[in-house]
Amino acid sequence: MSLLLVSNHRDMAPFKAAIEKIDSNIDVEIWPNVKNLNRVQFAVAWRHPKHVFSQYPNVKVISSLGAGVDHLIQDKTIPEHVKITRIITSSLADQMSDYILTACLNIIRKTEIYLEQQKTGKWKVHKTYKKDELTIGILGLGELGSKVTKRLLINGFSVAGWSRTKKMIEGAETFAEDELTDFLNRTNILVNILPLTNQTEGILDLGLFKQLKQPAFLVNAARGEHLVSEDLIYALDTGLIKHAVLDVFSEEPLPESHPFWGREKITITPHVASITDPDEAAELLVENYKRTLSGMALLYEVDREKEY
Amino acid sequence: MSLLLVSNHRDMAPFKAAIEKIDSNIDVEIWPNVKNLNRVQFAVAWRHPKHVFSQYPNVKVISSLGAGVDHLIQDKTIPEHVKITRIITSSLADQMSDYILTACLNIIRKTEIYLEQQKTGKWKVHKTYKKDELTIGILGLGELGSKVTKRLLINGFSVAGWSRTKKMIEGAETFAEDELTDFLNRTNILVNILPLTNQTEGILDLGLFKQLKQPAFLVNAARGEHLVSEDLIYALDTGLIKHAVLDVFSEEPLPESHPFWGREKITITPHVASITDPDEAAELLVENYKRTLSGMALLYEVDREKEY
Repeated sequence: MSLLLVSNHRDMAPFKAAIEKIDSNIDVEIWPNVKNLNRVQFAVAWRHPKHVFSQYPNVKVISSLGAGVDHLIQDKTIPEHVKITRIITSSLADQMSDYILTACLNIIRKTEIYLEQQKTGKWKVHKTYKKDELTIGILGLGELGSKVTKRLLINGFSVAGWSRTKKMIEGAETFAEDELTDFLNRTNILVNILPLTNQTEGILDLGLFKQLKQPAFLVNAARGEHLVSEDLIYALDTGLIKHAVLDVFSEEPLPESHPFWGREKITITPHVASITDPDEAAELLVENYKRTLSGMALLYEVDREKEY
Repeated sequence: MSLLLVSNHRDMAPFKAAIEKIDSNIDVEIWPNVKNLNRVQFAVAWRHPKHVFSQYPNVKVISSLGAGVDHLIQDKTIPEHVKITRIITSSLADQMSDYILTACLNIIRKTEIYLEQQKTGKWKVHKTYKKDELTIGILGLGELGSKVTKRLLINGFSVAGWSRTKKMIEGAETFAEDELTDFLNRTNILVNILPLTNQTEGILDLGLFKQLKQPAFLVNAARGEHLVSEDLIYALDTGLIKHAVLDVFSEEPLPESHPFWGREKITITPHVASITDPDEAAELLVENYKRTLSGMALLYEVDREKEY
């Protein structure tokens, strides 16, 4: 039996090393160097080449290397009987919380304005937003979203949250699927950490932006496909959204010619909000690998119908 | 009896309005428009003109408009019998915590590198510092410092603290006056929020920087006079300090010709870490004004010997 690591452009060697450190008996292979295609029962994928899994007739489980599984759900060549799992670690949630908190603090404290002023030696004080003046609205209250919410709350922010089924988080105002308008109407800083599914693709569009409370800001740390790019540009140009912080894009790396790069009202980070740590991931991968071999229930298995 | 508001260049009208809103019977005057010099018993000062208080023979108490009182302590024309108080509000401590937290998050997440990359359309991932890799060291564990420490702790940072007399803060490693070297040896991000006194002036010098743990960073949110500017420039040029975030300067506004402006390794904000809110300040000022008239003990009175 072997465990296969598959990625188009991520270096998988640290993950192989981390898995072998936990259990040196596991035969770990890195695509495309596979000795015996039939022996692969468990695979780990990050931006895998389409169709690659059809080469391994005995693969039972494929784990995403992160919290998102859209790249696996969308690959219709993966047979229906193959189970899909994902990686949720406390470090992933903590990094995501740090990223969102940093973005929100920089928005209220006007960090970028001061960095611009510095370039021309300009000393001018700008009013910061008070934390009780703005409400942060979190789209998606799953494993990551609920932790992000709690972290913003302990830092004194007002937080609202929206999820398909209503979640209860002490101190936050939460909304269910059919209460999206109510949620948006009291949200100033909209933070997207939804899973990418057929239902959520393109959710960040002009119709949604128009429902936000003014002044409005956007932070997207989920997937580029959630956002309708031209709608964001229109919203920024018309002042409907004052500033956007984007970590994800429908094409990554974001092409040099993309209009987002040159915009002062957009902050771009290269998909770094939350990066899976090999040692932490390895623990979960080894556990799920062993569960696969013994037929036990998997950890963080994805509902392929719901797509998350 | 009157309450006098004195500042060289800050608009005191909002403070007058806030005080009158609480108690319309208080006679609030704004310097230099004073009807009767003898009636001034309580004054509030922020960057006051030197010698100004010698004009008011009956002034008993002068309150700083913020947490710092160095501008009052250093004014030797203020008679010794005049008591000095300062303003500490939960909002001041919260704003300071936000400022320090923002600076530390931007350091570990390399925010400025990404903003620079964006200018040239560059997509490159940089390793973030993990929160357990770097220790934040807080110089000064008074009213503000202890709150800043707690806030960093709940956000998962490792925090050390140094103060004249050793303070106990759960979760932080604290050091007393004579343990400065031990404190510095385990500090990566040095955060200064000390009061400015004869003892602390110029404390941030090359000798101190050399004792920091590598990689080292500096955040100064106290007073410009704590820092020996040329030592910081030397430390940045030699890589002893990787980056400095400065909110305060010995001359403010920082002159356009100052070498700090043009440095990539320095982030400048125009003394905005913590700004006194008129409504919050007014409550404390009215309370201390009434205590002055009735001869009661004052809130947040400063020990003029210790200078804080």
